[in-house]
Amino acid sequence: MARIRLGMVGGGNDAFIGAVHRIASRIDDRFELVAGALSSTPEKSRASGEALNLPRVYDDFKQMAIREARLKNGIEAVSIVTPNHVHYAAAREFLKRGIHVICDKPLTSTLADAKRLVKAAEASDALFILTHNYTGYPMIRQARAMIEAGDIGNVRVVQAEYPQDWLTVEQDFKQAEWRTDPARSGAGGSTGDIGTHAFNLACFVTGLEPDSLAADLDAFVAGRQVDDNAHVMLRFKGGAKGMLWSSQVAPGNENALKIRVYGDKGGLEWAQEDPNYLWFTPFGQPKQLITRNGAGAGDAAARLSRVPPGHPEGYLEGFANIYSEAAEAITARREGKEPGPDVVYPTVQDGLRGVQFVDACVRSSARNAAWVSL
Amino acid sequence: MARIRLGMVGGGNDAFIGAVHRIASRIDDRFELVAGALSSTPEKSRASGEALNLPRVYDDFKQMAIREARLKNGIEAVSIVTPNHVHYAAAREFLKRGIHVICDKPLTSTLADAKRLVKAAEASDALFILTHNYTGYPMIRQARAMIEAGDIGNVRVVQAEYPQDWLTVEQDFKQAEWRTDPARSGAGGSTGDIGTHAFNLACFVTGLEPDSLAADLDAFVAGRQVDDNAHVMLRFKGGAKGMLWSSQVAPGNENALKIRVYGDKGGLEWAQEDPNYLWFTPFGQPKQLITRNGAGAGDAAARLSRVPPGHPEGYLEGFANIYSEAAEAITARREGKEPGPDVVYPTVQDGLRGVQFVDACVRSSARNAAWVSL
Amino acid sequence: MARIRLGMVGGGNDAFIGAVHRIASRIDDRFELVAGALSSTPEKSRASGEALNLPRVYDDFKQMAIREARLKNGIEAVSIVTPNHVHYAAAREFLKRGIHVICDKPLTSTLADAKRLVKAAEASDALFILTHNYTGYPMIRQARAMIEAGDIGNVRVVQAEYPQDWLTVEQDFKQAEWRTDPARSGAGGSTGDIGTHAFNLACFVTGLEPDSLAADLDAFVAGRQVDDNAHVMLRFKGGAKGMLWSSQVAPGNENALKIRVYGDKGGLEWAQEDPNYLWFTPFGQPKQLITRNGAGAGDAAARLSRVPPGHPEGYLEGFANIYSEAAEAITARREGKEPGPDVVYPTVQDGLRGVQFVDACVRSSARNAAWVSL
Amino acid sequence: MARIRLGMVGGGNDAFIGAVHRIASRIDDRFELVAGALSSTPEKSRASGEALNLPRVYDDFKQMAIREARLKNGIEAVSIVTPNHVHYAAAREFLKRGIHVICDKPLTSTLADAKRLVKAAEASDALFILTHNYTGYPMIRQARAMIEAGDIGNVRVVQAEYPQDWLTVEQDFKQAEWRTDPARSGAGGSTGDIGTHAFNLACFVTGLEPDSLAADLDAFVAGRQVDDNAHVMLRFKGGAKGMLWSSQVAPGNENALKIRVYGDKGGLEWAQEDPNYLWFTPFGQPKQLITRNGAGAGDAAARLSRVPPGHPEGYLEGFANIYSEAAEAITARREGKEPGPDVVYPTVQDGLRGVQFVDACVRSSARNAAWVSL
Repeated sequence: MARIRLGMVGGGNDAFIGAVHRIASRIDDRFELVAGALSSTPEKSRASGEALNLPRVYDDFKQMAIREARLKNGIEAVSIVTPNHVHYAAAREFLKRGIHVICDKPLTSTLADAKRLVKAAEASDALFILTHNYTGYPMIRQARAMIEAGDIGNVRVVQAEYPQDWLTVEQDFKQAEWRTDPARSGAGGSTGDIGTHAFNLACFVTGLEPDSLAADLDAFVAGRQVDDNAHVMLRFKGGAKGMLWSSQVAPGNENALKIRVYGDKGGLEWAQEDPNYLWFTPFGQPKQLITRNGAGAGDAAARLSRVPPGHPEGYLEGFANIYSEAAEAITARREGKEPGPDVVYPTVQDGLRGVQFVDACVRSSARNAAWVSL
Repeated sequence: MARIRLGMVGGGNDAFIGAVHRIASRIDDRFELVAGALSSTPEKSRASGEALNLPRVYDDFKQMAIREARLKNGIEAVSIVTPNHVHYAAAREFLKRGIHVICDKPLTSTLADAKRLVKAAEASDALFILTHNYTGYPMIRQARAMIEAGDIGNVRVVQAEYPQDWLTVEQDFKQAEWRTDPARSGAGGSTGDIGTHAFNLACFVTGLEPDSLAADLDAFVAGRQVDDNAHVMLRFKGGAKGMLWSSQVAPGNENALKIRVYGDKGGLEWAQEDPNYLWFTPFGQPKQLITRNGAGAGDAAARLSRVPPGHPEGYLEGFANIYSEAAEAITARREGKEPGPDVVYPTVQDGLRGVQFVDACVRSSARNAAWVSL
Repeated sequence: MARIRLGMVGGGNDAFIGAVHRIASRIDDRFELVAGALSSTPEKSRASGEALNLPRVYDDFKQMAIREARLKNGIEAVSIVTPNHVHYAAAREFLKRGIHVICDKPLTSTLADAKRLVKAAEASDALFILTHNYTGYPMIRQARAMIEAGDIGNVRVVQAEYPQDWLTVEQDFKQAEWRTDPARSGAGGSTGDIGTHAFNLACFVTGLEPDSLAADLDAFVAGRQVDDNAHVMLRFKGGAKGMLWSSQVAPGNENALKIRVYGDKGGLEWAQEDPNYLWFTPFGQPKQLITRNGAGAGDAAARLSRVPPGHPEGYLEGFANIYSEAAEAITARREGKEPGPDVVYPTVQDGLRGVQFVDACVRSSARNAAWVSL
Repeated sequence: MARIRLGMVGGGNDAFIGAVHRIASRIDDRFELVAGALSSTPEKSRASGEALNLPRVYDDFKQMAIREARLKNGIEAVSIVTPNHVHYAAAREFLKRGIHVICDKPLTSTLADAKRLVKAAEASDALFILTHNYTGYPMIRQARAMIEAGDIGNVRVVQAEYPQDWLTVEQDFKQAEWRTDPARSGAGGSTGDIGTHAFNLACFVTGLEPDSLAADLDAFVAGRQVDDNAHVMLRFKGGAKGMLWSSQVAPGNENALKIRVYGDKGGLEWAQEDPNYLWFTPFGQPKQLITRNGAGAGDAAARLSRVPPGHPEGYLEGFANIYSEAAEAITARREGKEPGPDVVYPTVQDGLRGVQFVDACVRSSARNAAWVSL
């Protein structure tokens, strides 16, 4: 099976997430990066392309979309790894030319853009994959499969949290800069950058539909224009309740995404920083430590694992799993087939839901944490 | 220094918390239990008193208060360990006779009783000590001292949680029965039984004054009349924010009280089930594991510790520390002195604040989680 | 049931282990401390006795043994908590007068004394209880019961370790001083002080008989006369093998006694610093976290527990369990009965085995870690 | 910089370690796999090569070495991932033709072969890199750098262990089969397969030279011809002491390689299953949790990290770091330069030392755990 020809928008030198996407695309050898428009500045784009030995480098994403679409062996898919406010404009160009889009999250910086992007994706024959990468962790798949199988019964309570500490004080380096600029990141700060992950995971793992939320947002660092701490109460359709905490000002938390789900028959707990473990307590029995590929872990985790239990896989492998799922879907599409029933990846609808989450948080907080529908 | 003569109200055979109080009072050998009205039924009271070799056993607390007050060597203090709805009536009898009261929490089952009890305590020469026992843990004292010393800077975020799982399904044994009966426990279920602990700890550790809360309460088990899960957002005076989660339906959580506090200079994390540890992260430095009596722990923890680091102390020792603080205060009072400045224990005001917390939770939840002042 | 009248030898002001024994004897209210010869210096003995409100204080243990034996309500049992080299002489005086002895470990400072003490104990009607306190931890009882029940199959491998760090540098305070003086502690340093605990636990938990050992001892701190680090290989009768590491120069280890046992059907792991947990892995199934009094824990742990799961018990409660077992045995003896079959405590034979362990370590090490029979 | 052209010997379909090497070689995009002799059976070799889209597939390694050496753009390096007994013969063919060798561990199945391979490597202009992959973990580099910098003072005690449980019962699948066949794996079982890793790490991290060992080996599973449990005492030149435990029959241990090093100023502890953490205790200060790329971690870890702290890297990234170091060395060689001083990888001498370790263990155990020089 030939590798999928991949392009990239954004991700020039010293961009964090672009390098992550490239590694993720390589790990399972299903993609070959052959083209890029790696920066908003043509010179930087060229320099970055050269450093990566890219066969084809473009000045901007539109040029790239047009030309690649005309090539016989042009790119089949593109990874969009720019700041949030560029996602929509870039994705549109590729979608309308039938090039599959793998897009970083959050989907867009505004709700209006998100809705437009949904339409663009629905109007296209191409696939749209959103890299809510944490859904690629094997033990997240394991948790989802267990909940679907009824192992913890009906879900009652979902506790999701995503604390970090890197914005505890004012930062002026590149990663911090655009992420705290509402024009580029969107109206949400921690809510958009990391809260969306926690929210997405809460829905993904439980299969629940969110109903409404009440949010109390703060910007604790003087002069910050977007939230750096968010306290959110969640209600799900069917009666389950949740809490969500996202923070970038919680010293001692590097990237401490955690999700805990409690049903009437048991509980599950997972932490991103130790991702190879899933704690499972069937009510009335001892707590079990299920490990990736170990005893107690099933097919949902195994199909996204590469090495035996006790050999930890991490963030990059979880990210690579999104690319592997994308590869499954894209190669099935090549052959006019549907991918297997196990293939799951975050979609443009999940992306819309994330942007709606941010929008709802901001609106609720502005109304003194009133309940806002999702 | 002669031991303090102690009586007990409640705590008859097979009462959980009464036995805990008795052990706690014995550990440091400052008290001697000499009298009791151990049950609401005189027969049970007598039987329990005999089993404990108690010199003096009474039919009820009023009889005990009257007679002990007349004895030359009657009790100097009484422990009240009945269900919540009896606290006020019992405490009043002893307070008005100048007998110090050590009372289990929550203070009372109703806000009206709580206010009356505050008046009774204020009108009395006797001391009133509330056994919010978790404030007796050495590493909680350590955390409080560090925050007071500015080690984490200005507090911004407080995450308190107290999940348990024992009420995941309907239970019919004694402990469960009265705790889920609003007539005896009060209008709050998990909020009253354990949420008050988490709330008290949040205030005790940070020194912050609570301002208001928004609460979303549920009774997930069919037919349950009080909340078994509470999601609460907190606002403190001065701008700090908090979340509080109490639950008795979270499988895999035995008694998982946890508090995390984040300031602009660092963070602290403590978990009741592993109480000899305190995680401290000065922002920009590695996380430190401070241990009870170990390197990095100071006087506030040491004065309430009995054994060297690495020799774990637990729940009973933490509880005993409340009794030790009470003993300090009572013996100082004997001599007409003030106890030393380090002596700290939860007061009737803390108790009132706890009952106000429950009341606010219930009222907020009834109003769709509207903000309610504290 | 009247409390057991208890005396104490050693344990004067600022002695660590004496205070521990006193708390341990009080926790379950089965003993009453009424007499003491608390120091080798009569003046100190008197001062310490006064501080403790002891009814009867003696100049030395012999005087105490003689006089108490004559009293109508003299002590029924004595706790011996002196430095090791005094154990034999003190114990003998009480044993020969029919007073039960509760003695700290190691049994004696020399093998010759240990053998004499065995004879003295065997010749006496009185009971001899050795406070290998770690055998009192509920989850150690749980582990023992599980192994006895075959839950991990035939034991193959036992990994015991007991690292500390307090002697990493030269120390000159009292605790360090006598423990590093061979005349008072015996020929073993870490082997005697803590290695005996690890060795005792390995035997107690598995039920295996030790066969032989090979030991490589070091005194890393200049001028130290006894070992501060011991590497030991163990062979048990029947073919199981073990390793034992004791160290007092391992920075970062406060009191990190740990035991791991592996059989052909499963494994068990326990750590003293987190004593309420027992890890159990049935081969081919997920690892289980069994908690004290929690799901999966059985009667052997429950009978030595006081509070519900999630309410941690610690070192003092484990120590108190040895006193409770002693109380069971002593009160049975009062009534001319045998204690129940569950009552277990370390005996003089266990003590002899510990001293033999130290002796074997020292001899093996002197012979370049040759195998020495046990 | 053009990618390094890589070949592979062994690693056909369903070989575990071959797939690992391929992923490791891809992660940082420094290698391109272009040729292979993937199996000892030509048919399987061809089938595996096709499955991998390899441009050039050979019947056997000799044919591959001969032909690739003649090609203008033949392979520059070869990965040897066969069972141990083939390593020497395969490596020799490439070394003598100037093709760099990246070889799995242990170096060879016999000491004689190991010595021959050392000679072959020394006689060659080509580089020899042994994939003791655990030395590639960033926090292992961090530990090594800290010890070299004197952060824990003079090393006294090294505790290395590597327990697994997969051979607790007899297994008949491929991985188990050759690893328990002395003709293919060598005379050591657990000692060769995993003990060599622990031994290598002990030396790598501390910089100590091993002096001698005493080993007690067992084959607990009936009929097993090589050890499945090894207890080893170590002596290092200069006086440090160590213990090493390797086991494949320890239920509950998946791949629990762990190393702890104690010096006169501090201690370090690292566990492979949670590889992003390094515990550091400066004596007399609180224990610190240093995280990969986090506060407290330095350049040695950072240069082998790809993502920020809190984003876990795992086994494959650690393995990839060996490939990255190899790439650094190979590209420097291309240009006639020396690689930078930070570039470190396990050499043929480390491989020899590993085989000597196995040989010494087997000989010591045969002589009742007598000391054997290393």
